[in-house]
Amino acid sequence: MSQSQPLIIDCHGHYTTAPKALENWRNQQIAGIKDPAAMPKVSDLKISDDELRESIEANQLRLMKERGSDITLFSPRASFMAHHIGDFNVSSTWAAICNELCYRVSQLFPDNFVPVAMLPQSPGVDPATCIPEMEKCIKEYGNVGINLNPDPSGGHWTSPPLTDRHWYPIYEKMVEYDVPAMIHVSTSCNACFHTTGAHYINADTTAIMQLIQGDLFKDFPTLRFIIPHGGGAAPYHWGRYRGLAQEMKKPLLSEHLLKNIFFDTCVYHQPGIDLLTKVIPVDNILFASEMIGAVRGIDPETGSYYDDTKRYVQATGNLSDAQRYQVYEGNVRRVFPRLDARLKSQGR
Amino acid sequence: MSQSQPLIIDCHGHYTTAPKALENWRNQQIAGIKDPAAMPKVSDLKISDDELRESIEANQLRLMKERGSDITLFSPRASFMAHHIGDFNVSSTWAAICNELCYRVSQLFPDNFVPVAMLPQSPGVDPATCIPEMEKCIKEYGNVGINLNPDPSGGHWTSPPLTDRHWYPIYEKMVEYDVPAMIHVSTSCNACFHTTGAHYINADTTAIMQLIQGDLFKDFPTLRFIIPHGGGAAPYHWGRYRGLAQEMKKPLLSEHLLKNIFFDTCVYHQPGIDLLTKVIPVDNILFASEMIGAVRGIDPETGSYYDDTKRYVQATGNLSDAQRYQVYEGNVRRVFPRLDARLKSQGR
Repeated sequence: MSQSQPLIIDCHGHYTTAPKALENWRNQQIAGIKDPAAMPKVSDLKISDDELRESIEANQLRLMKERGSDITLFSPRASFMAHHIGDFNVSSTWAAICNELCYRVSQLFPDNFVPVAMLPQSPGVDPATCIPEMEKCIKEYGNVGINLNPDPSGGHWTSPPLTDRHWYPIYEKMVEYDVPAMIHVSTSCNACFHTTGAHYINADTTAIMQLIQGDLFKDFPTLRFIIPHGGGAAPYHWGRYRGLAQEMKKPLLSEHLLKNIFFDTCVYHQPGIDLLTKVIPVDNILFASEMIGAVRGIDPETGSYYDDTKRYVQATGNLSDAQRYQVYEGNVRRVFPRLDARLKSQGR
Repeated sequence: MSQSQPLIIDCHGHYTTAPKALENWRNQQIAGIKDPAAMPKVSDLKISDDELRESIEANQLRLMKERGSDITLFSPRASFMAHHIGDFNVSSTWAAICNELCYRVSQLFPDNFVPVAMLPQSPGVDPATCIPEMEKCIKEYGNVGINLNPDPSGGHWTSPPLTDRHWYPIYEKMVEYDVPAMIHVSTSCNACFHTTGAHYINADTTAIMQLIQGDLFKDFPTLRFIIPHGGGAAPYHWGRYRGLAQEMKKPLLSEHLLKNIFFDTCVYHQPGIDLLTKVIPVDNILFASEMIGAVRGIDPETGSYYDDTKRYVQATGNLSDAQRYQVYEGNVRRVFPRLDARLKSQGR
């Protein structure tokens, strides 16, 4: 925990490598929406601890060791949340299964994985319906945060903005349990939006602009959001956003947003991380790679994995060692107090 | 035309300061959609040359002189295109009026303004219907480019991606007349998307990802698009886009995109322009400010207008004087050959 050897905490990892049985079960569930006779039971899904171990050791854990990261905040595969599929019951069963798997991974690898919950959102359904799953994950499974999808329709954006009272039941529970939310969409079913190349990044940008337009943090001064993928377009256009807030007579973004929103470092090249760390105050930056995720290849320009974001954080001239400690560990502990408590209970 | 004194050509300006009579006429037209008796005639709109002159001299031309830019490629106000309103006839009448006004401005200020056309797009209507207006603007009004809205629905994204054959009639005419298109959406009527803070930037990101997914430029090797607002999120996430193209087995982006797409400099702070000019080859960067546009204030951090982008282009350490000439003039002449011809005919 010293500043020279920070814990490297990746606040954004998904279980993208779950055993194939999970996907097969989901496909059966989707078939069961139209043909109830085909609907599988939860108990039909059988994944052993050995299978879970193998899927992690050969993938995320191997890369964490290679890259030198210690802990991943681990949530169900984002693109598979697919909240647009089926109704609340379909989402509810699916979320429970996915969250249980991440919980089991965290039990099998207590030093390396800490669970973050997906919610059983469904388009047009009151978000309050998500609270039982959310509470179970926090209280029984030790989840330290949640992923909140601002567009459960999957690219049609039919829900109200994040500043709308529609979402307040979730926010009230987040405040009660002192857990942050990563604002993270799922698969796009709109042909205009490529899931990881357009929908994800657009959602990040959209969320930030919604938060600029509104005054959500007046109602919830302790609410905390992580905007993934380096905040979408926002840091690159920070002057635009500062200027738009100014036209709207909002306070400076340092006041209006930065007490409550945080950016991860899922930006897959050095100039992007250099900009992020130049423009956004270091207190608002959390280390993350989204490994193993959207971009799995090796960058021919560097010979390293695109998503090995630790290399960029190490190499940027914008951070001192003390600031790197903040990005890797200090800020993450502050934004996720339940993670901090868990680490302290482990003597870390 | 020497490199030491380039013409400063702003490739992205809209007529945001048109006389109030224009907006009044449009409001009447919108009322006329529901109440045909209220529908105004085109001839009801009367704007004198003096009114046009005044609206330009007090605004764009004043700021161009203050900031030291020479020429603006000038198109109708983007947020007022509002292609989602009414049917093709409504859009067609409106586009004709707006394009005529920009043409008149270009006639009144032939040294400073060169027109770029909006199209009479309408959701669900074949883009081929836009061709008569497009041809009139190019052949009779001397327009050197067009603005193409990839989402005429205004934030619901109901049209197919830009790589779809749906759009090919427009592309065929663009190639025939050798005019580029700026990919520019209009007002968002989706409450999730703030028009200039989310919808514009998302559309830029979306367009680039569509072009990565497809192979449009195999069919149209000479087609040229300008992606405004610095390319949305793309340059900030250039590693992500290079990596996604790689996963899709596409050629390097230098091959796959950069012979055909160009980024403007509408990025309203120094770190953004520094990133753009570091990541994107200089041949693909065109000077622009979108003045007078979305962000009209003065940045308290610099004491200058946010949208005075020439300051950032001047100040960046990433460009030599020869490269600045490219950004200000050389590239714009190359991407807009009809502008180049017009300037040459003026001895410039």
